[in-house]
Amino acid sequence: MPLLLREDDGPIAVLTLNSPGSFNALSMPMLAALRAELTALASNEAIRVVVLRGAGRAFCAGHDLKEMQAARSASDQGADYFAGLFGRCADVMAAIVALPQVVIAQVQGVATAAGCQLVASCDMAVADEAARFGVNGINIGLFCSTPGVALSRAVAAKAAFEMLVTGDFISATRALALGLVNRVVPPEALEAETRALAQQVAGKLGPALRLGKAAFRAQAGLGLAEAYAVAGAAMVQNALLDDTAEGFAAFLERRPPGWKA
Amino acid sequence: MPLLLREDDGPIAVLTLNSPGSFNALSMPMLAALRAELTALASNEAIRVVVLRGAGRAFCAGHDLKEMQAARSASDQGADYFAGLFGRCADVMAAIVALPQVVIAQVQGVATAAGCQLVASCDMAVADEAARFGVNGINIGLFCSTPGVALSRAVAAKAAFEMLVTGDFISATRALALGLVNRVVPPEALEAETRALAQQVAGKLGPALRLGKAAFRAQAGLGLAEAYAVAGAAMVQNALLDDTAEGFAAFLERRPPGWKA
Amino acid sequence: MPLLLREDDGPIAVLTLNSPGSFNALSMPMLAALRAELTALASNEAIRVVVLRGAGRAFCAGHDLKEMQAARSASDQGADYFAGLFGRCADVMAAIVALPQVVIAQVQGVATAAGCQLVASCDMAVADEAARFGVNGINIGLFCSTPGVALSRAVAAKAAFEMLVTGDFISATRALALGLVNRVVPPEALEAETRALAQQVAGKLGPALRLGKAAFRAQAGLGLAEAYAVAGAAMVQNALLDDTAEGFAAFLERRPPGWKA
Repeated sequence: MPLLLREDDGPIAVLTLNSPGSFNALSMPMLAALRAELTALASNEAIRVVVLRGAGRAFCAGHDLKEMQAARSASDQGADYFAGLFGRCADVMAAIVALPQVVIAQVQGVATAAGCQLVASCDMAVADEAARFGVNGINIGLFCSTPGVALSRAVAAKAAFEMLVTGDFISATRALALGLVNRVVPPEALEAETRALAQQVAGKLGPALRLGKAAFRAQAGLGLAEAYAVAGAAMVQNALLDDTAEGFAAFLERRPPGWKA
Repeated sequence: MPLLLREDDGPIAVLTLNSPGSFNALSMPMLAALRAELTALASNEAIRVVVLRGAGRAFCAGHDLKEMQAARSASDQGADYFAGLFGRCADVMAAIVALPQVVIAQVQGVATAAGCQLVASCDMAVADEAARFGVNGINIGLFCSTPGVALSRAVAAKAAFEMLVTGDFISATRALALGLVNRVVPPEALEAETRALAQQVAGKLGPALRLGKAAFRAQAGLGLAEAYAVAGAAMVQNALLDDTAEGFAAFLERRPPGWKA
Repeated sequence: MPLLLREDDGPIAVLTLNSPGSFNALSMPMLAALRAELTALASNEAIRVVVLRGAGRAFCAGHDLKEMQAARSASDQGADYFAGLFGRCADVMAAIVALPQVVIAQVQGVATAAGCQLVASCDMAVADEAARFGVNGINIGLFCSTPGVALSRAVAAKAAFEMLVTGDFISATRALALGLVNRVVPPEALEAETRALAQQVAGKLGPALRLGKAAFRAQAGLGLAEAYAVAGAAMVQNALLDDTAEGFAAFLERRPPGWKA
């Protein structure tokens, strides 16, 4: 079986990390498969929403520890491999942030280390009640510094720091309170609720979603004046779309819009 | 009736968006009226707190959709108008942030799109239990990118993004948990509770509030060293005020301060 | 008795602000003592965690108002003193952020003004249920602008602003919900729970904690690409440590690690 599955459902692409035996470890091959699929999706205007899920009992348990350990036998003790691994991983996370589509994580079981980073990097996340989240590399001597980048942009600083230095897991309920996930649902409802959210978003005007996500991500961290310049330019471009004119007309005439895009 | 009412109550100015028939839409004339009033307030040292409220059932439902739709009949399909609208709107929001006075939103009914941006841009907000908040332009094909600038500086990223792409409203209770509003009160207590908060703040030393708000806003988003430089300079200036010396003396002597400002 | 006590418990250093009669005021001598101790700790590789606590009924009530008031009798009305005080205070707060060790505030009673800034500046905080937090200089005419720098990096903007302009205290429960503290415990459990957290963290690999905290603090506020570059470099360095190789091996072999550091 391939490491990464993709199934399209109209405007929704469902990506499944498909290595349940390794708890969907983000090995180099898995990261390469993810990167390739994200590149393919980026130019696919028919897809508006991407759901990212994991096969089996876990969402994703981070990198492949055996692969990492094996890399130490190289003459450089793995220095090249580690730089490549963390660089490739950050590249995949940044590609999710930069993806034109809205990306929703569907989380069951554990989301650990780079797996927790994956959840934090997605635009939204739905978790089942039993899901647990941790950045617990510190427990085996490797501080989750790159996962901390995504985590500390999603939740309050002290809460992120506690997770990083204690290695403790947090519950789905706590993840919701912190802002790491958007919704917590019973396990049996996870797939349906995630798909319903994806369908709700996919029913919006595609080019508006694309312009909007790009502006939202671009303005983050800028000063207020710069942020408004970026977001204002996106809104003007959005407002001038024929389909947006139709959306306004439909609203004012109390009828559903007849969108072309 | 004018689009914007102002009523002063000692050091408190109450601004009322007064277009209940349009749910206090932020039309170009309304934005112009707001901008003019903010400019007048900025140089008024007698006013320490501004309460921003809306007449009628809603706080503010965002821009005027009919005005926006009519602008499309221009030879440029409304490009100039849209750039002017979003630019003027961002300018008003930035003027609230930059205003020397503390600005409190008093929110009943809906705060939608640019109306939600207005709440997010104020320094504080009090909402009644039935108030609802949304950035729902996406529902008619226009992603609320500029409201997203203010919203994403007030609440956690994933929660802001969910509101922007789903178009769903959130309750006052949820807005409180997210940090979009400071207090939620019964509808019948909204005006009194907001006024009590305004009076509490207005009872503080005016120049200290001005120096403090300016420093608070200026340091946001800066690196730690730069932020401390900005805030430290403001504190020195504040500490050297005669009225601050009097405030310290009064505290140490366990008597109320006899402030001149 | 010295103003600042230090007691080491293996890899944990406990610093006690020891001026209970002044509610552990951050006077110039207290700040100097803290700065000196932080400098000493920074080069002490045997210490991994610092617990910061206050003797007596309060954690810390901010600066010494009598000292500040006395400084006004100088020919410059205290201008030099105030610049020195706020500069030295910011320097101490920044030193906590930059300290290689993990710093945990143990908070009982009140944490006021610069005392609340101290809590916000620590990496984590444990509070007893009766603890209260405020940045209430505004009540005597001095806006807590420099405390606002640390506070607004720990909690949501509107909540921070409300504390700064109202001068109101918040409860430990509210501080937990806002992200200002990590844990709230019964008063009789405060010391034991804080020590247990310190011991948990101190049981991790020291160099990993150091690399991780430095990267976490350095990446805060950077753009995503820069943040990943900083954090990625730290992770590569961390992964190449012999003790980290041992941590991985121990985990894969299901045995406890035999760390040297």
